[in-house]
Amino acid sequence: MMISLDGYVAGADLTLETPIGGAEALFDLFDQRAIHGVDRIGDDPITVDRALLSTWGHGVGADIMGRRMFGPQRGPWREDDDWRGWWGPEPPYGNPVFVMTHHLRPPIEFDNGTSFHFVDGTAAEVLARAKEAAAGKDVRIGGGPATVRQFLEADLVDFMYLSVAPIVLGHGLSLWGGLEAIEERFDIESVTTASGLTHRLWNRKPRDASGS
Amino acid sequence: MMISLDGYVAGADLTLETPIGGAEALFDLFDQRAIHGVDRIGDDPITVDRALLSTWGHGVGADIMGRRMFGPQRGPWREDDDWRGWWGPEPPYGNPVFVMTHHLRPPIEFDNGTSFHFVDGTAAEVLARAKEAAAGKDVRIGGGPATVRQFLEADLVDFMYLSVAPIVLGHGLSLWGGLEAIEERFDIESVTTASGLTHRLWNRKPRDASGS
Repeated sequence: MMISLDGYVAGADLTLETPIGGAEALFDLFDQRAIHGVDRIGDDPITVDRALLSTWGHGVGADIMGRRMFGPQRGPWREDDDWRGWWGPEPPYGNPVFVMTHHLRPPIEFDNGTSFHFVDGTAAEVLARAKEAAAGKDVRIGGGPATVRQFLEADLVDFMYLSVAPIVLGHGLSLWGGLEAIEERFDIESVTTASGLTHRLWNRKPRDASGS
Repeated sequence: MMISLDGYVAGADLTLETPIGGAEALFDLFDQRAIHGVDRIGDDPITVDRALLSTWGHGVGADIMGRRMFGPQRGPWREDDDWRGWWGPEPPYGNPVFVMTHHLRPPIEFDNGTSFHFVDGTAAEVLARAKEAAAGKDVRIGGGPATVRQFLEADLVDFMYLSVAPIVLGHGLSLWGGLEAIEERFDIESVTTASGLTHRLWNRKPRDASGS
């Protein structure tokens, strides 16, 4: 996740036209293009930012996201709603994606292996379903902030990657609300790159040692 | 490549028992285990070191190495030599590997897709053969230092990844001999991690802009 200096990971004004809700500046420093080989990135340099961002997708077998990350709608789905997500015909997942919502609807499937499943339940329940679908691979929790917070509160996160952009957004959706002292459960490594991004790797402490 | 503060990437005393020639301390800070998914690394934390080291193998279609990286022998091969490299039955390449040597011998093939081809020629000639074998993917030059130096001298390197270990070896095989001012051809990004390693990404400057 990208996060601002003041702790916002998305804007509040999420609409069809502004999927990051007015917080697009979070992504100005980095185009999120992954490295799939030295030549593959075209004429652009291979930066530490790109190298780090390219790591996290490997070994993922299922994703979890909040409903707002799937689309801007609120409340019950309209019966004629043909929304299939923000991503066009090839969503960048290639595996089952569990969308947490109280408003269920049939799954949506794509030719590239991506499928969206609309599920209601606690973080632990949804994680159990996603783990089964992942068949031994990892489960990635993509966002938004309310969804990530649920999993952090339930202590279900083994690893978190946060990239801090040196900007102040002033408003938006905060990651940190209600997570006082969450850092005590993690070992955190920080590295700052030439772009000004600070990448932080949060590894859950061994559960024996932390006493929880 | 791992390199010491004084510029050595391997020891000089390369034998069957000491494949890094007495410079094993270069690898003390890092076990070189790549990340293939958050759970896959066992109970070890995901560090920036591991994330960076895990990036470079993606998209590689062929490797080039010097003869000493393949084995400790010198001079002509004995007719009954059954040496198949340092790596046992599953060398960690999975693609064609071109071993630069004046002493040719038939290729050696493994079940996991790795094959070693013994080739004589200039850096440019060997690169051309490796590029053809890579079929559009990248060619990786793994070492040792004399081999890397040949490709740097011939300006055939688009990208170089060097990780500096904070140790002084005092002797060994140097990377830098004969490469005065080589840095002028590259844009270099440095980042230092919690382990004390400094990772440097050398991206070849656009050839138009550099005038060469």
